Amino acid sequence: MTTVTILGAGVMGSAMVLPFSDRGMTVRLVGTHLDEAIVESVKAKNFHPKLNVTLPKGVSAYHHHEFAAALGTDTDFILLGVASAGVDWAIEKLAGALKRPVPVVMITKGMSPEAATLGVFPDVVRAALKSRLGFDVPVVAVGGPCIAGELAVRRQTGTVIVSHDRNLAEDFCSKFETEYYHPRPSTDMVGVEVCAAFKNFFAIAVGWAHGRMEVIPEAENKARNNNAAAILFDQAVMEMLALVKALGGSPESVWGMPGTGDLYVTCQAGRNSRLGNNLGRGLTYSQVKAGPMKDDTIEGAELGRAVAKSLRAMVDAGRLSAKAVPLTLALLDALTGDKPLEPPWAAFARGH
Amino acid sequence: MTTVTILGAGVMGSAMVLPFSDRGMTVRLVGTHLDEAIVESVKAKNFHPKLNVTLPKGVSAYHHHEFAAALGTDTDFILLGVASAGVDWAIEKLAGALKRPVPVVMITKGMSPEAATLGVFPDVVRAALKSRLGFDVPVVAVGGPCIAGELAVRRQTGTVIVSHDRNLAEDFCSKFETEYYHPRPSTDMVGVEVCAAFKNFFAIAVGWAHGRMEVIPEAENKARNNNAAAILFDQAVMEMLALVKALGGSPESVWGMPGTGDLYVTCQAGRNSRLGNNLGRGLTYSQVKAGPMKDDTIEGAELGRAVAKSLRAMVDAGRLSAKAVPLTLALLDALTGDKPLEPPWAAFARGH
Repeated sequence: MTTVTILGAGVMGSAMVLPFSDRGMTVRLVGTHLDEAIVESVKAKNFHPKLNVTLPKGVSAYHHHEFAAALGTDTDFILLGVASAGVDWAIEKLAGALKRPVPVVMITKGMSPEAATLGVFPDVVRAALKSRLGFDVPVVAVGGPCIAGELAVRRQTGTVIVSHDRNLAEDFCSKFETEYYHPRPSTDMVGVEVCAAFKNFFAIAVGWAHGRMEVIPEAENKARNNNAAAILFDQAVMEMLALVKALGGSPESVWGMPGTGDLYVTCQAGRNSRLGNNLGRGLTYSQVKAGPMKDDTIEGAELGRAVAKSLRAMVDAGRLSAKAVPLTLALLDALTGDKPLEPPWAAFARGH
Repeated sequence: MTTVTILGAGVMGSAMVLPFSDRGMTVRLVGTHLDEAIVESVKAKNFHPKLNVTLPKGVSAYHHHEFAAALGTDTDFILLGVASAGVDWAIEKLAGALKRPVPVVMITKGMSPEAATLGVFPDVVRAALKSRLGFDVPVVAVGGPCIAGELAVRRQTGTVIVSHDRNLAEDFCSKFETEYYHPRPSTDMVGVEVCAAFKNFFAIAVGWAHGRMEVIPEAENKARNNNAAAILFDQAVMEMLALVKALGGSPESVWGMPGTGDLYVTCQAGRNSRLGNNLGRGLTYSQVKAGPMKDDTIEGAELGRAVAKSLRAMVDAGRLSAKAVPLTLALLDALTGDKPLEPPWAAFARGH
């Protein structure tokens, strides 16, 4: 019998309860200090109030101070499902509780800004744990298109499980696969993680097209603005390729599930798209954050703001060609310099 | 002053009037025998009844029997905008009228089924004209995401102009570019044309997900089916890659504008998606064609039915691995064998 302890009871970590439970695992769900109400609800009636679903029977919920108890001596692997802002907290928590190298599977997405480069979270977590614990903890990550609320009701979902060790990735794929959950293995840590983080950032740009349509004069034939969205979608794919190459990843992740697949689903709805809609309407980022999206955490914008300095340093250092990433640079100007977002259309075509 | 004669006054050929006219060209628009009403309307009041737009001043309209007169001795290039079913007719028309090698720019999309392979239209047209005329006519093609009604009102649009001769492709890009129309050059004739044709075919599959959602029980949390759509979108990109490779094209077209960009826009709406919705609801192809889409020409389905035999022969001959194209084979079974479409989810993950 496999036992998994999930750290982070937000929507994504909790949705993974479904395939785990359906594969017969013992599941322990540990909330962070932000998940108190969720943990109480699951303890009381097995209902997850953010996913809006009743979890399968047999899931045990724990508060964060009960993490060590949840982990016990029998946990076979840990699923790390905290938000990107919670990674440092999670490292503390793991460093304080791990007595042996229990593999960590990361759902958390994000990039770690460094001088003139970006680090990927699984490698950052692995290095931090090694230095704190003195032994190696295998860290694996999950990427690809997965809307948590859909997985939580067993809708067909495909993902990628990535590890530097192919056998480990394949092993977790076999462990997680169900009739509706279809992970595939990859060893391209950089490619998968860059796509997982940046698809949110670029979904902002694709969302621009529909927002802009609302504020330009209606066309004689009521035409929409999908051609523009398609240019932006394609340019996003091109610039993810450029970023992945510059950071040492493989292009296959970009045109596969982690890149085009995840970008596609992220552009269908969600907060990143809505920020893009608002930028398309002509608002600046600070106007959006002061008005229509005041209380929203917008992952793609948070990422852009966090990595802007490192990305610009990569361009300055010649590690990334400005010609290859005109959309990225326009987005960074909008997110950190509060400039109106106007896609540089001609520059896109000239970059090819 | 550049003079262009457009053969085919349907929506796509006619939408190209906009960039041509804005670049100061003399534009002559020649209808086929299916375009009589359009030609009359443009002659009388400059209004295109299918695009629902008034064309720019100065466009002359011609009936098909006036083609030679339209061509005159001063046409600098021909834009071929007939439907795929009209290609043989267009070859006749061109062979009968061309006295010199006027370059032909093809908007027409499609594949020509051969024994155990597929031919691309521009090469087929070039070979046919050479054998009929005794001299070489340069044939160039346009691919990439372009909804005609949007281009016709000057919405931002990006395309790819492809030729075996890079200089010729670049030359036409310079000729066509405007503030809203952004072509980029390519020499990958096979890649661009395979994507242009097959994006319609695969958009059927992506549309399946939303149709299926309508007929399965509503989820406790009202989840949609976007994860499934993302798997299908990604698988479509993977199988376009496999097809392009098998036919000798370049993967760059697939992850660029002609592939992912055009597939993205094609999945937003349209007849191919609607067929997919209906297949997702559980109807067979013949039930859809006898019922909800009785009078519709569905390009992706027409293509699938036309090339099914050649594609299966490619698999049998070992030119295309069945493992690499499970979605293609399931779609062909649905379109030619009237089988219900059930995406083989597990096979997608195993193909990687």
